[in-house]
Amino acid sequence: MRAIRGGVLSPGGFSASALNCGIKKRGRDDLALLFSEFPAFCAATFTTNRIRSGSVTVSEKAAKKGIAQAVIVNSGNANCCVGESEIKDAGRMIALAAEGLGVNKELILVGSTGIIGKPLPITKIASKIKQLVKNLDYKSGTKFARAIMTTDTVAKETAVKIPIGGNLITIGGAVKGSGMIHPDMATMLAFFTTDACVDKTALRDAFKEAVRDSFNRITVDGDTSTNDSAFILANGFAGNKIIRKNSITYVKFLDALKTVAKNLAKKIVLDGEGATKFVEVTVKNANTEKTADKIARRIANSNLVKTMIAGGDPNWGRVAASAGSAGAGVKQGKLDIYFGKKQVMERGRGTVKNHKTLRGMFKRKEIEITVDVNSGKKSATVWTCDFTEDYVRINAEYET
Amino acid sequence: MRAIRGGVLSPGGFSASALNCGIKKRGRDDLALLFSEFPAFCAATFTTNRIRSGSVTVSEKAAKKGIAQAVIVNSGNANCCVGESEIKDAGRMIALAAEGLGVNKELILVGSTGIIGKPLPITKIASKIKQLVKNLDYKSGTKFARAIMTTDTVAKETAVKIPIGGNLITIGGAVKGSGMIHPDMATMLAFFTTDACVDKTALRDAFKEAVRDSFNRITVDGDTSTNDSAFILANGFAGNKIIRKNSITYVKFLDALKTVAKNLAKKIVLDGEGATKFVEVTVKNANTEKTADKIARRIANSNLVKTMIAGGDPNWGRVAASAGSAGAGVKQGKLDIYFGKKQVMERGRGTVKNHKTLRGMFKRKEIEITVDVNSGKKSATVWTCDFTEDYVRINAEYET
Repeated sequence: MRAIRGGVLSPGGFSASALNCGIKKRGRDDLALLFSEFPAFCAATFTTNRIRSGSVTVSEKAAKKGIAQAVIVNSGNANCCVGESEIKDAGRMIALAAEGLGVNKELILVGSTGIIGKPLPITKIASKIKQLVKNLDYKSGTKFARAIMTTDTVAKETAVKIPIGGNLITIGGAVKGSGMIHPDMATMLAFFTTDACVDKTALRDAFKEAVRDSFNRITVDGDTSTNDSAFILANGFAGNKIIRKNSITYVKFLDALKTVAKNLAKKIVLDGEGATKFVEVTVKNANTEKTADKIARRIANSNLVKTMIAGGDPNWGRVAASAGSAGAGVKQGKLDIYFGKKQVMERGRGTVKNHKTLRGMFKRKEIEITVDVNSGKKSATVWTCDFTEDYVRINAEYET
Repeated sequence: MRAIRGGVLSPGGFSASALNCGIKKRGRDDLALLFSEFPAFCAATFTTNRIRSGSVTVSEKAAKKGIAQAVIVNSGNANCCVGESEIKDAGRMIALAAEGLGVNKELILVGSTGIIGKPLPITKIASKIKQLVKNLDYKSGTKFARAIMTTDTVAKETAVKIPIGGNLITIGGAVKGSGMIHPDMATMLAFFTTDACVDKTALRDAFKEAVRDSFNRITVDGDTSTNDSAFILANGFAGNKIIRKNSITYVKFLDALKTVAKNLAKKIVLDGEGATKFVEVTVKNANTEKTADKIARRIANSNLVKTMIAGGDPNWGRVAASAGSAGAGVKQGKLDIYFGKKQVMERGRGTVKNHKTLRGMFKRKEIEITVDVNSGKKSATVWTCDFTEDYVRINAEYET
């Protein structure tokens, strides 16, 4: 496997375009299209929030068929909490894209991200569809990644190449964060493309597992979005022998897909609102994976832990306190804590006399916190970021 | 019932003192003593965090007897996560106070609050015990309330008087906040006194209920402390006929106790780290109280909701999204949301065209958010504060 510069247009047979249709101010792109030359197998996962965008409801239904050829997506408006028009407007976006592209509307998926509670300006979108289709090309991958941004500060995309069954296949992806990021289909839009020829079931299972091990392991602020959507299109352009489940090629494909997904998940965390540091929290030796996961998430979501990291202060007491508040699974006399490789707590007792010796570690861009509960054999890892004054500023000033 | 200016020394038969023994810098008081002239019935509740201070462990055991005469408390050091010395040092504090006061050490309770992970400077405490006892007087209630503060910005105390069975009884209290404030024995120290003559069981039950309906309903930052402790001493000084359970006087006593507890709980929220606003979140018409409570807490702990309030921005979409993320119990088509009396969402759909009309409400010091899930008959209320850049600054700069 080889990482390459690229994104959704790195795999063969895909094109994209993006433009401003008037949802966002200052002419920033807010409408984007991703298109496969051939109908592709598709898989998708969506938010678990009970309050969800009409675009999510419509796309979930559309993705169930397992075949798609294009995704149309707008930023700046979530198409959420505005009543019945949500479903209609999401359907309208699909119909407009279908008409413009000249493909069956059953082959179009839709995504929305942005402010909740304002009706989608569908006439603005309609007025630009022709132009959007006309602009489709093979080099607008980054432009696509940029158009889906809201409070994100950088476009987030990545790609890998991997030889499978004699052919070189490519997997690419683009995502947007960057607030309302919380486990369970983290708060985001993600678009994956691959030119691999993959069986429909294999694609669905691989995608589910890749999302579980990447986006569902990150948290920025503990808030879950109404619009999370992740899509993958596999158009078979690489011409490899079809990848089926329980095969060696499946394992290789899954591994590559996970690499792309994890890479993008990390990019979301690093571009978390106000974030300056990437933090990996690992809980080891719990009785069950669920317990390890619960404790890791509790630590990763603790405002006190996250502000401590923002302040560069190795206050391991806050890590211990947040672990303990996760309830069952933590026994004080068994708790070990490490910052990087340095042990700071042993069996419930602090081991560091001079905190200043730890400060250097907290100046790094990436910080590892490991909590060993010494009660079993299961582990879990969660990725998060620090919590800075900028997060508050961004979210206090966000305009409705 | 009549609210009066006052605190732990408003009821008869109690005295207090406080001084600096060298734990805190700049000579601020960090050691305090609360004393009843007679052995009093006592009740107490403690943190549910699995990582807990030695002072909590020792006090919990001591309070089980139901009789106490004094509480010694230090601030600036949590006596937590330092190993076996914790239990020894908490016991030492009790022994020192018992010796100084000349009372049996079984009658002394202990509380600690401050930094986690540093050994308690017990010799500093020992060196000041005589002075502490000598300083006991009837007018140092506020001095006591001030000595227990950590990042609190104001001393928090209150008292009420209420005629019960022909006698006027008084209940007073003092608390400290103000970070790591989260439900389930909110993160704090609380000291209640009353001169009422109350049966031991009645006192325990009344205190449990008062704590449940006050401190366990507030949240500042979603982090749970290792040191939460709440104590009440009832010394019978008022000479009223003993208050027993299932009596009219019990109902009156409970009501007065709840008033004091709620008042103090609100003071904690208002003095939450960086807080500028008090927010009451009520969830109505859920199937069960547990569901209502879960949704209310999710909203009250949402960083996005809390930063929105800091920014004075009536972005009800964030309230809907956080309610939806609480899982079961929220159906989009049944969700109504109110800011104060103003309905902003009806059956899952926003009702406010012009957000500017809501801005006035968000300039108020106290904000009410009501979420009606229209699915049953149970309600729950949680109190929280807004989330400002100052919270981050305070917690990023907090020194270990």
